[in-house]
Amino acid sequence: MASSVGGNGYSDVTRVLFCGHYWPASTIYTKEYLQNYPFIQVDEVGLEHVPDVIQNYHICVVKNKCIDSDIIAKATKMKIIMQYGVGLEGVDINAATEQKIKVARIPGSTTGNAIACAEMAIYLTLGVLRKQKEMDTAVIQKDLGLPVGETIFGKTILILGFGAIGMEIAKRLRPFGVKILATKRNWSSYTVSCDLDGLVDKKGGPEDMYELAREADIVGIVDHKFLSALKKGSYLINIARGRLLDYTAVFNHLESGHLGGLGIDVAWTEPFDPEDPILKFPNVIITPHVAGITEYSYRTMAKVVGDVALKLHAGEPFTEIEFVN
Amino acid sequence: MASSVGGNGYSDVTRVLFCGHYWPASTIYTKEYLQNYPFIQVDEVGLEHVPDVIQNYHICVVKNKCIDSDIIAKATKMKIIMQYGVGLEGVDINAATEQKIKVARIPGSTTGNAIACAEMAIYLTLGVLRKQKEMDTAVIQKDLGLPVGETIFGKTILILGFGAIGMEIAKRLRPFGVKILATKRNWSSYTVSCDLDGLVDKKGGPEDMYELAREADIVGIVDHKFLSALKKGSYLINIARGRLLDYTAVFNHLESGHLGGLGIDVAWTEPFDPEDPILKFPNVIITPHVAGITEYSYRTMAKVVGDVALKLHAGEPFTEIEFVN
Repeated sequence: MASSVGGNGYSDVTRVLFCGHYWPASTIYTKEYLQNYPFIQVDEVGLEHVPDVIQNYHICVVKNKCIDSDIIAKATKMKIIMQYGVGLEGVDINAATEQKIKVARIPGSTTGNAIACAEMAIYLTLGVLRKQKEMDTAVIQKDLGLPVGETIFGKTILILGFGAIGMEIAKRLRPFGVKILATKRNWSSYTVSCDLDGLVDKKGGPEDMYELAREADIVGIVDHKFLSALKKGSYLINIARGRLLDYTAVFNHLESGHLGGLGIDVAWTEPFDPEDPILKFPNVIITPHVAGITEYSYRTMAKVVGDVALKLHAGEPFTEIEFVN
Repeated sequence: MASSVGGNGYSDVTRVLFCGHYWPASTIYTKEYLQNYPFIQVDEVGLEHVPDVIQNYHICVVKNKCIDSDIIAKATKMKIIMQYGVGLEGVDINAATEQKIKVARIPGSTTGNAIACAEMAIYLTLGVLRKQKEMDTAVIQKDLGLPVGETIFGKTILILGFGAIGMEIAKRLRPFGVKILATKRNWSSYTVSCDLDGLVDKKGGPEDMYELAREADIVGIVDHKFLSALKKGSYLINIARGRLLDYTAVFNHLESGHLGGLGIDVAWTEPFDPEDPILKFPNVIITPHVAGITEYSYRTMAKVVGDVALKLHAGEPFTEIEFVN
């Protein structure tokens, strides 16, 4: 094992920076995977310290840090900015491209991330339908046999943005006895080998979401014009991005009872204020942005990040990441 | 509408007694269903008052009241003792038979009860795998991206007592990517039209449960000798009867870490003490005996109970209940 100079011409050590202390297992698992390679250095620093140290690193794992053009300008040794997962909306990709830094994600279909997210969406759906908070209260108050919940069975589910996760959700919900509606920008681009016709009862483009909303009981993700088109009592689940929901609109529709419940793994700011008034509604449940965070997917992604570091060090081509620039 | 004498020879009113105030929706929904029939009287009394008033009633809905021979001896006008659901283990059926009282349950396959219970089993499974309590703590502590959970995907599930609920669970879990093992007293008695071979990967009788336990990650219900046969880190879910688990054995296996988690809708005493030490384990979650309690199943069962009262009053035969004596 060479600990001197890598194929990419670096002197002795290839340095990987994890931004921020959230999602702690990402750093821990990557360090464990690389523990026998002393020529790879993995560090994690607080979000506020990233601009001060980024000039020392060759690979940056973003997590929820916003990597803007100011930070990128300082990243003079940087070769790859990547996500521990798929979301790259915090990265100024144009600025990275100008500075000849590659930007990459780890596709969810190979890491188990899409499966983990799909299971979480079903967990949140069941939690909202069975009234998780009221169940907790009933246990504490020594009640039995309440609240009266709802089944997924018989419901109509609208999945907005039917990608890898949406497909895994649809596969799993099919035997629950549901009608599945879905929107997607370009259905013909779907290359995954899967009987889509059997999974989705009604397909539409983004422009059909308001019409499809009228049929739905449970929804994937929504924008702000969408809520009042929903049937009264519909449930809303968000495992995608917190900003996809208009806070005020959601709040008002919960208050009026038009929304029957809200289950979110992602929030408008993160971490979300546990005292935020929207969490006071008895029919709102929240999880700490863990939809994709499972032992399997996190170990798999640690291997991907570790292999990127090893290949960068050796000057070999990358295989398991998807470049966006 | 006759409010005088029913076909069964009762003077004016047929009286239905709901035992105890738990599962409140059972009484409420039945009263609503029967609101236009003044010759049917539906009452609910506290568990302790049942012996004092039971002599006035023609139909008794048990809920969790233990109906022993002493109570039955007082039930001089009683024609039918029934459950709002399937569980009749609290009823002394022999004593009822001697007193010419019919005992009946409402089969779960027609009311949505089995489906509701199956969905709850999956909710509890996901809750244990994703570490519900630790997620709640993370939200309160403003953490993000922890705990690291587990997927159902890739797990082996053992369903002990593969009846209507077990089958609905298996149907739904199949596309999650699991191996399903199941035990049942008599597989050949299975009359439901369903491709059982496709749903269950390995079948056994009750005597095979210890052998199958060695393969399982997640289990339906267990007896006290069973736990140490499980793989280390297995998860245990109980939506059946609280007494099916040996409290001390479960407690000890949680303490040692041999059990990876416990999700229960039913407990050893009910309502269960919310301060019980077993609930202090971070990997134990409990719901307030609501597996079958959904709007749909409860409205459907209210109609069944209401129709039983109407038919008893009119002297007509019963169709939607299953007599056990």
